[in-house]
Amino acid sequence: MVRRVLSPRRRKAGLPPGTPVHIGEAGGPVRLTVYEYDEHRSTERVLDDPAECGTLRRDSGVVWINVDGVHDVETVTTVCEAFGVHPLVQEDIVNTDQRPKAEEYDGYLYAVVKMVSQSGEALAISVEQLSLIVMDRLVISFQQRPGDVFDALRSRIRTGKGRVRREGADYLAYCMLDAIVDHYFLLLEAIEGRIDPLEAAVLADPEPEAMVTIQALKRELLFLRRSLWPMREMIYRLSREGASVVSESTRFFLRDLYDHVIHIIEILETFQEIVAGTMDIYLSSVSNRMNSIMKVLTIIATIFIPLTFIVGVYGMNFVFMPELEWRWGYPAILGVMALVALLMLRFFRRKKWL
Amino acid sequence: MVRRVLSPRRRKAGLPPGTPVHIGEAGGPVRLTVYEYDEHRSTERVLDDPAECGTLRRDSGVVWINVDGVHDVETVTTVCEAFGVHPLVQEDIVNTDQRPKAEEYDGYLYAVVKMVSQSGEALAISVEQLSLIVMDRLVISFQQRPGDVFDALRSRIRTGKGRVRREGADYLAYCMLDAIVDHYFLLLEAIEGRIDPLEAAVLADPEPEAMVTIQALKRELLFLRRSLWPMREMIYRLSREGASVVSESTRFFLRDLYDHVIHIIEILETFQEIVAGTMDIYLSSVSNRMNSIMKVLTIIATIFIPLTFIVGVYGMNFVFMPELEWRWGYPAILGVMALVALLMLRFFRRKKWL
Amino acid sequence: MVRRVLSPRRRKAGLPPGTPVHIGEAGGPVRLTVYEYDEHRSTERVLDDPAECGTLRRDSGVVWINVDGVHDVETVTTVCEAFGVHPLVQEDIVNTDQRPKAEEYDGYLYAVVKMVSQSGEALAISVEQLSLIVMDRLVISFQQRPGDVFDALRSRIRTGKGRVRREGADYLAYCMLDAIVDHYFLLLEAIEGRIDPLEAAVLADPEPEAMVTIQALKRELLFLRRSLWPMREMIYRLSREGASVVSESTRFFLRDLYDHVIHIIEILETFQEIVAGTMDIYLSSVSNRMNSIMKVLTIIATIFIPLTFIVGVYGMNFVFMPELEWRWGYPAILGVMALVALLMLRFFRRKKWL
Amino acid sequence: MVRRVLSPRRRKAGLPPGTPVHIGEAGGPVRLTVYEYDEHRSTERVLDDPAECGTLRRDSGVVWINVDGVHDVETVTTVCEAFGVHPLVQEDIVNTDQRPKAEEYDGYLYAVVKMVSQSGEALAISVEQLSLIVMDRLVISFQQRPGDVFDALRSRIRTGKGRVRREGADYLAYCMLDAIVDHYFLLLEAIEGRIDPLEAAVLADPEPEAMVTIQALKRELLFLRRSLWPMREMIYRLSREGASVVSESTRFFLRDLYDHVIHIIEILETFQEIVAGTMDIYLSSVSNRMNSIMKVLTIIATIFIPLTFIVGVYGMNFVFMPELEWRWGYPAILGVMALVALLMLRFFRRKKWL
Amino acid sequence: MVRRVLSPRRRKAGLPPGTPVHIGEAGGPVRLTVYEYDEHRSTERVLDDPAECGTLRRDSGVVWINVDGVHDVETVTTVCEAFGVHPLVQEDIVNTDQRPKAEEYDGYLYAVVKMVSQSGEALAISVEQLSLIVMDRLVISFQQRPGDVFDALRSRIRTGKGRVRREGADYLAYCMLDAIVDHYFLLLEAIEGRIDPLEAAVLADPEPEAMVTIQALKRELLFLRRSLWPMREMIYRLSREGASVVSESTRFFLRDLYDHVIHIIEILETFQEIVAGTMDIYLSSVSNRMNSIMKVLTIIATIFIPLTFIVGVYGMNFVFMPELEWRWGYPAILGVMALVALLMLRFFRRKKWL
Repeated sequence: MVRRVLSPRRRKAGLPPGTPVHIGEAGGPVRLTVYEYDEHRSTERVLDDPAECGTLRRDSGVVWINVDGVHDVETVTTVCEAFGVHPLVQEDIVNTDQRPKAEEYDGYLYAVVKMVSQSGEALAISVEQLSLIVMDRLVISFQQRPGDVFDALRSRIRTGKGRVRREGADYLAYCMLDAIVDHYFLLLEAIEGRIDPLEAAVLADPEPEAMVTIQALKRELLFLRRSLWPMREMIYRLSREGASVVSESTRFFLRDLYDHVIHIIEILETFQEIVAGTMDIYLSSVSNRMNSIMKVLTIIATIFIPLTFIVGVYGMNFVFMPELEWRWGYPAILGVMALVALLMLRFFRRKKWL
Repeated sequence: MVRRVLSPRRRKAGLPPGTPVHIGEAGGPVRLTVYEYDEHRSTERVLDDPAECGTLRRDSGVVWINVDGVHDVETVTTVCEAFGVHPLVQEDIVNTDQRPKAEEYDGYLYAVVKMVSQSGEALAISVEQLSLIVMDRLVISFQQRPGDVFDALRSRIRTGKGRVRREGADYLAYCMLDAIVDHYFLLLEAIEGRIDPLEAAVLADPEPEAMVTIQALKRELLFLRRSLWPMREMIYRLSREGASVVSESTRFFLRDLYDHVIHIIEILETFQEIVAGTMDIYLSSVSNRMNSIMKVLTIIATIFIPLTFIVGVYGMNFVFMPELEWRWGYPAILGVMALVALLMLRFFRRKKWL
Repeated sequence: MVRRVLSPRRRKAGLPPGTPVHIGEAGGPVRLTVYEYDEHRSTERVLDDPAECGTLRRDSGVVWINVDGVHDVETVTTVCEAFGVHPLVQEDIVNTDQRPKAEEYDGYLYAVVKMVSQSGEALAISVEQLSLIVMDRLVISFQQRPGDVFDALRSRIRTGKGRVRREGADYLAYCMLDAIVDHYFLLLEAIEGRIDPLEAAVLADPEPEAMVTIQALKRELLFLRRSLWPMREMIYRLSREGASVVSESTRFFLRDLYDHVIHIIEILETFQEIVAGTMDIYLSSVSNRMNSIMKVLTIIATIFIPLTFIVGVYGMNFVFMPELEWRWGYPAILGVMALVALLMLRFFRRKKWL
Repeated sequence: MVRRVLSPRRRKAGLPPGTPVHIGEAGGPVRLTVYEYDEHRSTERVLDDPAECGTLRRDSGVVWINVDGVHDVETVTTVCEAFGVHPLVQEDIVNTDQRPKAEEYDGYLYAVVKMVSQSGEALAISVEQLSLIVMDRLVISFQQRPGDVFDALRSRIRTGKGRVRREGADYLAYCMLDAIVDHYFLLLEAIEGRIDPLEAAVLADPEPEAMVTIQALKRELLFLRRSLWPMREMIYRLSREGASVVSESTRFFLRDLYDHVIHIIEILETFQEIVAGTMDIYLSSVSNRMNSIMKVLTIIATIFIPLTFIVGVYGMNFVFMPELEWRWGYPAILGVMALVALLMLRFFRRKKWL
Repeated sequence: MVRRVLSPRRRKAGLPPGTPVHIGEAGGPVRLTVYEYDEHRSTERVLDDPAECGTLRRDSGVVWINVDGVHDVETVTTVCEAFGVHPLVQEDIVNTDQRPKAEEYDGYLYAVVKMVSQSGEALAISVEQLSLIVMDRLVISFQQRPGDVFDALRSRIRTGKGRVRREGADYLAYCMLDAIVDHYFLLLEAIEGRIDPLEAAVLADPEPEAMVTIQALKRELLFLRRSLWPMREMIYRLSREGASVVSESTRFFLRDLYDHVIHIIEILETFQEIVAGTMDIYLSSVSNRMNSIMKVLTIIATIFIPLTFIVGVYGMNFVFMPELEWRWGYPAILGVMALVALLMLRFFRRKKWL
C-alpha cells in the first residue's frame, strides 16, 4: 500500500511557481462525467471534449463535473480555465503528492483530500488524491483513476433518496467528504482484522517476518494519520469559520463530520499503541523462546557432562585401579550415575526450570 | 473487556447522513421506564408503547424517561420525534460506537458518555453507552442494555434523600454523570487490585503469559483514558461555559465533578506508568533468569570439561605412558582433579558467580 | 511510602453528592488546638468540645484552629458548620484522597495540599493531606494525624520572630504552605541520598533487587510530581489572580513560593531522568556480566573441546595405530596439545576477549 | 554531510556585540555578481570592487546583488555599508552558524536560511547558509561558496519566462526561497533512496555497520528538521503578518510555500519514524540470528552429548561388563544410539526448533 | 561537574521567609571591586569596607560593584541595604541553588543566572551563580568565587573599545549576559569534543565504562538545559516586555541574545539526541560482540562434538568390533572425520556465520 512516501518531483524543480506539472503515477483512462440535478430531475453524461464545460448552464440545480485522470494536464487546465480557477490551484490538482488542505479563493473553495478504498481482495488498499472545487451550484472533482467511493452517493442523486437533491453544491461536497471518511472507518476495520491475529501469532510462534509485518502496519497507520490530521484541521476550519460557499446548514453537518474524523484519529492512535504492544510481545516471545532453548541445553548438558566424566574415569588405563576388578563395579557405577542424574533433576525442578 | 476497538459499520457506509442505523452489539429486551417526581411525590411506571411519551405532562417536577435497548431503532426514533429531537442526534443515539461529547441544540442538550460497571464476578467489566437528552424538566436517557449504575440514584428519588427531588432536570443529569464517574473510581480500584499482585508475580516467576496480561491491562487503561479524556473536556465546557438548560447552581456541582474526572485521569496515568514499570521488571526478570541459567551451565561445564580432558589423557592407549604403571598414579590423578575443581570454584566465587 | 495509589471508596458510591464520608486510613487521636495571636501576644489551648469554636472571637489578631484526625467526621462537620463552610468542602476535607486544589467560596478560600514529612529513621516518609480554610482573621487547618511540619512556625508565633504576628490570616496560610514546600526540599535531599549509591551499586553488582528499588523510586517520584503539579497550578493562580482573602503583599510572597515549587518540580524531573539512566546502567551491567560469563565459557570450552578430541583419537582401540607404539608418542602428543592451546589463547587475545 | 553540529567560535568570544567575525569554514573565491532587470530587459555583470555597489541605480526594475564568499568580512561590510545595513545584521551574515530567521529592520528585511544541494555523486550533500537582504527594488544575497540552487531562476530572469521579471524584489526573494525548498524535496528523495534498501539489508544480514548508517541517517534527518522548523516559523510569519517590503500578492505565494515546508517537515517526521522502525528491525534481526545460532548449537549438543556418554560407558575398563562380550553388542548399541538420536529429533521438531 | 543536583538546605528549613541563609559551597576570599566609568574615563578600585558602598556617587557615568563570595552573608546584606534591596532578593542572592529568573522591583531589576566557565585543564568545568541588580546608572553583581567570564568586558571598559562606555547600566548588564551566553557556546564545543570520539570508541570496543560516560554526559546536558530554559524565558521577557530600567535600544540587543540562547538550546537538544544514539550504538555493539562470541563457540563445539563422538565409538571395548581389526581402519576413520568437519564448515559458510 504505502510504497513510497514521496513522489519523484525532479522534473518539477526549477520551473516557475504556478506551472502545472503532473507528479505521481499515471492513472487510468481520462474521462469527464457531468451530473446535473435539481430537486425534480437528474441527468448524467460523459463529455468527450473538456472545452464543453464552458457551455454548462447552472441556472437551477447543481452541476457536478467529475474528472478521472489528473495526469492529463491539458484536460485539467482546460476545465479549470473554463471556470477561472487560479494557476496555483491547477498546479496543486495535478500534483498528487499534496497535503490535505482547504483554501478559499475568490468565489470558490479548493479542497484536496486523500481517498482510501479497498478493491478486489480484502488487503489491496488504494490511495487516491481527490481535488474538489466548490462554487455556487457547481462542484468539480478531480481523481487520479476511475473508480471511487461515491457509488452510493451517485445512486442517491439518481433516486433522490436523502436530502442531497434538495441542497446546494456545498452539501454535495460535504457528502463526498462524508463518504471518504466513512471509507476510512471501513479501512480501519480491515486493519483491525489484521492486527488481531497478529498478536496471537507472535505469541505462539515468533517468526522474524512478524517484525516486518508489524513495521508495515506501523507505516500504514503513520500514513493514515498523516493524511487524517490535516483533514481534521481543514474540516474543523470549514465547520467553525466556514467559507463563503458553505451555507450555515452544511456547516452543521461538517461539525458532525469533524466528530467522526476525531473518532477515527483516536482509533488510529489506539491501533498504534496496540501495534507497539504487539511488538513488545513479539520481542518478549523471542526472548522467551531463547530462554526455553537455553534451559533444554543446560539441563541436558549439566546432566551428561558429569556422567561423561565418570565414565571417562573408568576408561583410564591405570594398571592399579581396584574398582575395575570388583565383581559389582560396573552395576555400582551405573547406579551412582543414575543417582547423580536424579539429584540433578531435583535441583532443576527446585529451580523451576522444568 | 475490550474485545474490539471498532464496531463494524459496513451496513452504514453509503447511507445518507442522518439515517439512524444501529451500530454495535444487540442489547437485551427493550423497555421504557418513566419516573415522574417533584419535591413532594415520585412515581415510576413502564410504558408499553413508546408513542405514549408524547402525552407526558411536565408542568411541575421532573420527568425522566429511561430507554433500555438502543438497538431497537424504531423505539428510539419514536421517543425522539415525540420531543422534536434532531435526526443527527437520533443517528448518534443508535450508534453505540460514539466518542463522549455534549452538544447544545435548540432547547435541549445532547450528551453521550461511556458507563462502566462490574457485574457478577469481580473481573467482568461491561461498558455501555449512555445518551442523555436534557430539556426543561425532562431527561431522556438511552442505554444499550437493562442494568446500570443508577440504582442508588433511583432510590434517592424514591425516598427523597439528598437534594435531587428539589432540583431540576439538569441536576438529575448531573447526578447521573456523578454516578458514572463514581463507578470509574470503583473500576480503578478493581484494576489496582489486579496490578498489585502482577508486579510480585513477574518478579518471582516471569511467565510469558505475564506479557499478555500486561498488554491487556495496557489496553484497558488506554480504553478508559480514551473515554475519559473527551468526558473531561465535555464536563469542563458544561461547567465553565454552561448551556441554556444548565442552571448556575448545577454548574457549581459540575465543577466539583470536573475535579473528580481530572483525579481519575491522573490515577489512570499513574497506573499506566506502573504497568510500564511492571513490564520493565518482567523483562529484567526474564533476563536475570537467563543469566542464572547461564551461570549454572558455565560453572558445571567449566569444571568438568578440563577434568574430562584429564581422564581422556589417561585413557589413551600409548604403549609408553609411565604414569599408568605408577602404584599411586590413579589416586594421584584423582587428587589433581579435585584440586583443579577447587581452584575453579574459588575463581567463580571471586567473580561473584556463586 | 506509596502503598496504594487509590483509597477504597466503595462505601461512598451511591451517596448523594455533598455527603461527608471519610475516605482513607483512620488517623490518630482527634484533637482541636486553637492559637490566638496579634502583634503583642499569643495564646494557645486545646478545645475539648468542637462546638466551642463558635464562641471564638477574632476582633483583633488572628485565630488558627488546627484539627487533627479528619476521620472523625462529626468533629469536622461541627467545626465547619460553626463558620458556615459549604457541604461540598466538608466532603472534600474528610476525603483524604484529594487532588491539591484551591477554591474560592463566598468569604473564604478552601485549599487542600499534600504534606510530606520524615519521621524516625531517615527513610520513613509519611504523606498527609492538609485542608486549609482561610477567612478574614481566621485559618482552620485539618490534618489526618497529630504531628506536622509546622513546629518552627508555631515557635515563631510564640516568640514573635519573623513577621507572622504582624500579618493577617492569609500570611499565616502562606507560612504553612512555605513550610510544606520546604519539607519537599528536605524529602528530595533524602531521595538524592538514595539515588546516588544506587548507580554505583548497579554498576558493580547488578542484583535483580535493584530493578525493584528503581521501580519503587520511580513510583515515589511519580507520586511527588502528581501532588506537586496541581500545587504549582494552585499557587500560581493564587499569586497572579489572587483571591479576596489574599492581600497584595502576601501575593508577593506567594510568587516567591511559586518559584520554589517550580524549582522542586525541575529537580524532580532531573531525578526522574537520573533514575531512568540508572535503569539503563543496570540493564547494561546485567548484559555485560552475561557477556563476561559467556566469554569464560567459550574460552574454556574452545580450548578443551579440541584437546579432548585429540586424546579421544588415541583412546581408540584400532589394532593398527602406529603412533601408539612410538617411543615418544605420548610426550609428542602432549606437546601438540600444548601448542593448540597456546594458538587458541593467542586467537582470543587478538579478538580482545582476554 | 553533518560533520560538526557547532562551528568553533573561540575567536569570537570576548569581542563587543556587533563585531563582524567570520565563523565557519572558509568558502571559495569571492565574487560579486549584479543582475539588473525589468519587464523588458535583463543584464548581468561581475563587480570587481564592492564599493561600486553604492553607484547602482534602481529607478526602474529590480537589482539583485549576489555575494559569494562571506568569509571575506571586508567585502561583506563594504556592500552592507553601501546600503546602510545594521552592524548586528553584518555580524549575522558572516557567522555561518546561524539559526534560520527573518527580521524586519527599518526599510529592509533580513532573512537567513540553510540551502542544501547535491553536487557530483548522488550522496555528496552540501549545506550552505544564505543571507538575504530585501529592500525596495533590491535583493542582496550572501553565499558561502560559488554554486547554488538558483540556476533555473537565473535562466528565467534572462529569458523572461514566468512572472519574475514583472514582479518586484520581494517576489525575487520568494523565488529564491521556493528554489531552496524545492531542493529540500530533492534531498528527501535522495534520502528515501538510501532508507529503502537499508530495511531489506538489515533484515537479510544484520551487519554492525547498519547501526552506524542508521545513526548517521538519524543525525541528517535531525539536522534537516533543525533547519526546517525555524524556516517554517519564519515563512509563516512573513505570509501572515507580512513585512513592509512584502507585497500582498507575494504573501499569497508565501502561503503556498508555507504548505510546502509543512509537507517537507511531515515527510521528514515520517522518515524519522521509518528509520526508528528500521533500527527495531535491525535489533530484532540480530537477536533472531543469535536465536538461530543457539538452536543449531543446542540441537547438535543435545543429540551428541548423550551419545558420547553411551560410547563412554562401553569404553570403561571394568573386568566384568557382560555386554562387551555379547556377539551383537556393538551393532545393538549402535542401534540404541540411532534410536536416541531419532527421538531427540522428534522432540525438537515438536518444539518447532527445526 | 554536576556532583549534586540539590544543595543541602536543612539549616534553612523553619526560618521565616526572607531570612538570608547561605546555601551551597563556601567560595573563596570575599572581595568588593568598584568600577566607575563614563564616556571619557574609567577607574577601578577595591573596597575594604562594604559600608563604603553607600558613599558612591553616580551623577555621571555608570558604577559597577562586583562582590565575590556570597557565602559572606553580612557583606551581601550590607551592600544590599545600602541600596534598599528587598529582603527576599537578599535571601535569593545568598542561596546559590536558584533557578535563573528576572524580577522587577521598585526601581531596580533583579536577575539570577548560571555562569559556566572552563578552568585549567580542558575538562574542568565550573558552574557559578551570578546575581545582578540593575538600577539607574548602577549594576551590582554577586559571584560565588573570584574569577569569571568578564575579563574581555572589563578590558573593553578600560580601553573604551565597543559601545559599553557610551551606554547605561542596562547595556553593561546585557554585556555580562552576552559574555555568559558566549561561554555556553565554548562549553558546548568542549562537550562536542567529548561526544565525537565516544561514538567511535563504543563501536570499536564496547567497554562497560562507556555507559557511565554516556550517563554522565546525559546529566551534564540535562543540567545545562535546566539552566538555559529559564534563562531563555527570562531574556525573552526582558526583550519583549522590557522593564523600567531597560532602555529600548538595549532591548534590541537582548532580542539578538535571545536568538543565541535559542540556538544553544537547539544544539543542546541535538547533542542529547546524539548521545542517545551513541547509547543505542553501544548497546548494539555489546550485543554484536556477544553474537560473535557465540558464533565461535558454536562453530568449534559443533565441529568437534560429532568428531569426539566418533572417536568415542572406536574407544569402546566390545570384543566383536570388526572395524578395529581392519588394516586401514584408523586412516579411514580419520578421513571420515575430516569429511564431517569439512561438511560442517560448508554449512556454516552457507549460513554466513564465517
